[in-house]
Amino acid sequence: MSSLIEMGQRAKDAAVVLATLSTPAKNKALLASADALLAAKAEILAKNKADVDAAVEAGIKGAFIDRLTLTEARLADMAEGLRQVAKLDDPVGEVLSMKTLDNGLVIGQKRVPMGVIGIIFEARPNVAADAFGLCLKAGSAVILRGGKEAFQTNQAVICALRGALAAEGLPEDCVQMVPDTSRETANEMMRLNGYLDVLIPRGGAGLINSVVQNSTVPVIQTGVGNCHVFVDESADLEKAARIVINAKTQRPGVCNACESLLVHEAIAEKFMPEIGKALQERKVEIRGDEATQGLVSGAVPATEADWATEYEDYIISARVVKDIDEAIRHIRKYSTGHSEAIVTENYTNAQRFLNEVDAAAVYVNASTRFTDGGQFGFGAEIGISTQKLHARGPMGLKELTTTKYIIYGNGQIRE
Amino acid sequence: MSSLIEMGQRAKDAAVVLATLSTPAKNKALLASADALLAAKAEILAKNKADVDAAVEAGIKGAFIDRLTLTEARLADMAEGLRQVAKLDDPVGEVLSMKTLDNGLVIGQKRVPMGVIGIIFEARPNVAADAFGLCLKAGSAVILRGGKEAFQTNQAVICALRGALAAEGLPEDCVQMVPDTSRETANEMMRLNGYLDVLIPRGGAGLINSVVQNSTVPVIQTGVGNCHVFVDESADLEKAARIVINAKTQRPGVCNACESLLVHEAIAEKFMPEIGKALQERKVEIRGDEATQGLVSGAVPATEADWATEYEDYIISARVVKDIDEAIRHIRKYSTGHSEAIVTENYTNAQRFLNEVDAAAVYVNASTRFTDGGQFGFGAEIGISTQKLHARGPMGLKELTTTKYIIYGNGQIRE
Repeated sequence: MSSLIEMGQRAKDAAVVLATLSTPAKNKALLASADALLAAKAEILAKNKADVDAAVEAGIKGAFIDRLTLTEARLADMAEGLRQVAKLDDPVGEVLSMKTLDNGLVIGQKRVPMGVIGIIFEARPNVAADAFGLCLKAGSAVILRGGKEAFQTNQAVICALRGALAAEGLPEDCVQMVPDTSRETANEMMRLNGYLDVLIPRGGAGLINSVVQNSTVPVIQTGVGNCHVFVDESADLEKAARIVINAKTQRPGVCNACESLLVHEAIAEKFMPEIGKALQERKVEIRGDEATQGLVSGAVPATEADWATEYEDYIISARVVKDIDEAIRHIRKYSTGHSEAIVTENYTNAQRFLNEVDAAAVYVNASTRFTDGGQFGFGAEIGISTQKLHARGPMGLKELTTTKYIIYGNGQIRE
Repeated sequence: MSSLIEMGQRAKDAAVVLATLSTPAKNKALLASADALLAAKAEILAKNKADVDAAVEAGIKGAFIDRLTLTEARLADMAEGLRQVAKLDDPVGEVLSMKTLDNGLVIGQKRVPMGVIGIIFEARPNVAADAFGLCLKAGSAVILRGGKEAFQTNQAVICALRGALAAEGLPEDCVQMVPDTSRETANEMMRLNGYLDVLIPRGGAGLINSVVQNSTVPVIQTGVGNCHVFVDESADLEKAARIVINAKTQRPGVCNACESLLVHEAIAEKFMPEIGKALQERKVEIRGDEATQGLVSGAVPATEADWATEYEDYIISARVVKDIDEAIRHIRKYSTGHSEAIVTENYTNAQRFLNEVDAAAVYVNASTRFTDGGQFGFGAEIGISTQKLHARGPMGLKELTTTKYIIYGNGQIRE
């Protein structure tokens, strides 16, 4: 038996215990886990320093190192995150519907834990604690596979969490980490059908694509966002400028940031130079079609590839469109189905955009940056689903559960 | 561009039209499709005769030929099925929740069509019409891949359906069939990410396993049911016998039939000989553990493989267990997560079984045969999901849809 199958079996056994654990017991374990993280501060930060030093020595650059690095403050945030999850409503046990059939059978649909959840993630070590907390509260065991650069940090974090579980009298195997960060082990994890009920990749497009291509375990695809803002003919241009600037520059490195601007030709002559200047003042490079280049001095030509690119950077593609139909066609062609916005004062166009644009979140007169579990009021999120199966958009605790039918009979048989 | 990618693009284009089609227009198209099937009766039955003759010539045997064969009555049933789907409530457009955030954003979650659905199925040609009807009503285009033995029949059926769509002014490509039944084409279909939103296999364990192993498109796994009935110490034995006999013999060839009987040791001496005799009178072979062999004359020994086998036949495995804990452990080990039943008069054991057994449908004092979209009141079903993602248990129209968030703002930006 491979070590991953053994891990899978232990996770299944732990999940049996978790599935019927009371909400207070889960909350107590979460608070104890938060304390354990802080108690292991010296160990975790020392291991993190070793990881960071090794990464620097390997020639890895700035932003990655920042994501990898833990500080006392970041560790405190991780602990606080676990305490926040303890405060969230427990999704498990909710009966979504219950009805009595003519034959007297009473059929209910009840929310139950998923079982065992796999998470494959990249540099940020906080994901280990976050994912553990959400899975525990949702009643599922979790198997984690982090990036190789954070291996020692993740080990120290998970060791502290397992210690807290054991002290609470719960199975340590509610959280496990794969034994190494080899590609072989990752591939084996992706094919752990019968043990893993779902696999959620958290990271860049490369990671997500690799999991989609290789996993036989059901996957929830997260993250990639080539998000558009369409400024319609009737838009309030002050609102439009505010929304475009916010969606592009408030935090450019995230999946709900705007990557592409579409402007109705009737207002392009007025709006495009203004927004172009405002974006350039904020260090945003503009890659435009011919019309945009004519209206924004300093705009460079956009290539076909630009329309499809999620920059996650201070760059935006921009195009002048004939009407809302052309805008919707453009979005249909290039959207990754994450978040799309229209700025308009026209009722019919607002409704058309909401109905005809196929994305996880479709906005009228608001920034795409709101697509986020915290902003949507879920309290926490495990990621943002860009697929249509199971969950679409920000995923909170509820999206980490499944349902089962419970049927109360009194001897019914089928005729 | 491969022909499958071209088909995928045409399906996406058709799905755009379907997504905003009114309920009356969809219902009218369904009724027209039913008429078209009957109008094409001669052609469809002739093609089916050619398929059946070829299968018989190839030496294919009884039950398969029966499933493959269309008659006037079966064709009328297919047409009637489409008319029934027209009567079902349209799931599209329902707003599941809507709330106003502190910042004034109004966020709603709305049920929307899936987009493009792929169905891979085996012998029964009625699946083509059934799947088309459900997908159309749910607002999605469908790409079908049937078994090679029914190729001509499926072509004739789909040709009739496409003709009806065209006559209604709708895109014919709401339903398409892959051009051949080669394994290469099936594999290409399973990797049509970006075009297919979901793939649903309908057929035996071999087909389902092949799709799970090879598909990079999200899959909904259906069907395999190694279903247990546990007769507890406190069971009403008359009810228990009725339920076991119904679950095993009312229709043994289906996924919700009982395959394995567990009997509490305290009542085994009384119940096992009675139920053994009753099953044997109905031509059921009993494969038992030692205790069962001692109690049922004619019972043959069960091997380890028997506990894990979905017979879909007049065979049942049977075991005497010490208590409900041993019953639940046995089910946890061998269950395929389809349908599981307890027969008991003990309140606590009924609740424990409902809570601790992890399956799509868990019954107290009723036959497992009720796990069915029709029986559950869904009006129709596309299959029974045995996975935990997206849908679990019988899938009706609602399970063929997804959701999106619609957000109404008035200029909100994220701080």
